Amino acid sequence: MSKLGLIAGGGDLPREIIKACQGADRPIFVVRLRGMADPDLAGEDGYDSGVAELGRTFKALKGQGCKAVCFAGNVPRPDFATLRPDLRGMAALPGAIAAARHGDDALLRFLAGEFEKEGFVVEGADQVVAGLTLGEGPLGRVVPREGDVLDIDRAMTAARAIGGLDIGQAAVAARGVVLALEAQEGTDAMLARCAQLPAALRGAAGAPAGVLAKAPKPIQDRRIDLPTIGPATVVAAARAGLAGIVGEAGALLVVDRPAVIQTADELGLFVFGLPPKSDR
Amino acid sequence: MSKLGLIAGGGDLPREIIKACQGADRPIFVVRLRGMADPDLAGEDGYDSGVAELGRTFKALKGQGCKAVCFAGNVPRPDFATLRPDLRGMAALPGAIAAARHGDDALLRFLAGEFEKEGFVVEGADQVVAGLTLGEGPLGRVVPREGDVLDIDRAMTAARAIGGLDIGQAAVAARGVVLALEAQEGTDAMLARCAQLPAALRGAAGAPAGVLAKAPKPIQDRRIDLPTIGPATVVAAARAGLAGIVGEAGALLVVDRPAVIQTADELGLFVFGLPPKSDR
Repeated sequence: MSKLGLIAGGGDLPREIIKACQGADRPIFVVRLRGMADPDLAGEDGYDSGVAELGRTFKALKGQGCKAVCFAGNVPRPDFATLRPDLRGMAALPGAIAAARHGDDALLRFLAGEFEKEGFVVEGADQVVAGLTLGEGPLGRVVPREGDVLDIDRAMTAARAIGGLDIGQAAVAARGVVLALEAQEGTDAMLARCAQLPAALRGAAGAPAGVLAKAPKPIQDRRIDLPTIGPATVVAAARAGLAGIVGEAGALLVVDRPAVIQTADELGLFVFGLPPKSDR
Repeated sequence: MSKLGLIAGGGDLPREIIKACQGADRPIFVVRLRGMADPDLAGEDGYDSGVAELGRTFKALKGQGCKAVCFAGNVPRPDFATLRPDLRGMAALPGAIAAARHGDDALLRFLAGEFEKEGFVVEGADQVVAGLTLGEGPLGRVVPREGDVLDIDRAMTAARAIGGLDIGQAAVAARGVVLALEAQEGTDAMLARCAQLPAALRGAAGAPAGVLAKAPKPIQDRRIDLPTIGPATVVAAARAGLAGIVGEAGALLVVDRPAVIQTADELGLFVFGLPPKSDR
């Protein structure tokens, strides 16, 4: 396996990829995006880079002998007015700004294209880490009950619909009503506001009700920015009074799977993989 | 004009309807929904009612000689487990619960149907109050600039899409990206979270950017629950750094229009009515 260049944004996914590479004896070089990558990654072989320093990043990755790159972790949309691109980044800027006007996903696809133009192969996180995605069926011990079926359908339909508009990847439904849709605020903030809705709308402590659904955008390049859950997602869903979490099998990244299973089992939530949508 | 029975939920719209009826010498009787209607309405001719006391409400309205009713103001979805219906309300309960499983709008349509079955005519707020809806074009002095056109289109498309799913009526887009979608939290909460997003995503204080769009749901009975704005909406949009607000002409209720215009002009926001969507 060729040496991997990891473009690391925020959150725990980059760490998971580093661990997997180390476990598989695959060499890895980490480009830590400044202000985004977890400070804990400072000790890894790699360097800190501004998000628009494309020339410097290409040079570093080539110098390290990386032929493949993987994008992982959250990368908030940059403020183009205050970016500090290097020369190569400057050349890409007009294209990046034009792409960004079509949404975050268009921007990411544009960026991946720039790496491919330089000869890099773009690998998805789930290609680098075997078994990273949710499979079909329950992940832990808890399974959905009949009363959850309507909410699973409503939440998944809503998540797919906003994904189709390149807006977000997640939705919450309870008792037949969509409580919240994710746009730029992120899943954790969306779940936090569900927790503050009147109890009549969502599940009460004694009787959890409702489902968080995360779905890939139909237009999205699946090598970049697949929806992700981790143990913190399960805790936040429980706090919101929900009964469980669903995703599309093969298209939801599960970070720290053992902790996700343990947390879900302890809190009594299901984590369930639905068959991929057939009409895609 | 026949005496109007006003079913009053939360917010300022019921007061606007009472004022309009008084100005037009139309008699009005106010059913103040307990826990929802503004306490200031206590002095009006009317009575307090639980949301499920249908029999009592029908009897009171008929005793008052009301032949028409108007639903106005926010009515949060009830907790069916703790409702206290009277006998007539009890009879409607199974239908209401079944309707609620299809969304809030289905529940409201069901309720309007129950009043019609009793012989009442259901009037929309905009039928009772002349000139209550937004017209085409700008409402105040400020007009959208060329740079706002993309955001107007993205926000309106998103608002219509979630309306098509009977989820919500409002969306915010800035610089080509949809920042937030409204579900059960309401427009004010949605705008408050936009204000907390990184400035790179939305408009900064010096350079407002972004648009709040409110659209009717395509399936909705336009006599009930049309989207609404008031002066507080304009203030919240300004706090979120937005450049303006758009709605569909004839399908956005403007509560306290003089204050909306004054606030928008002072804060430099546009309030703009788009032509109704032709393919409805």
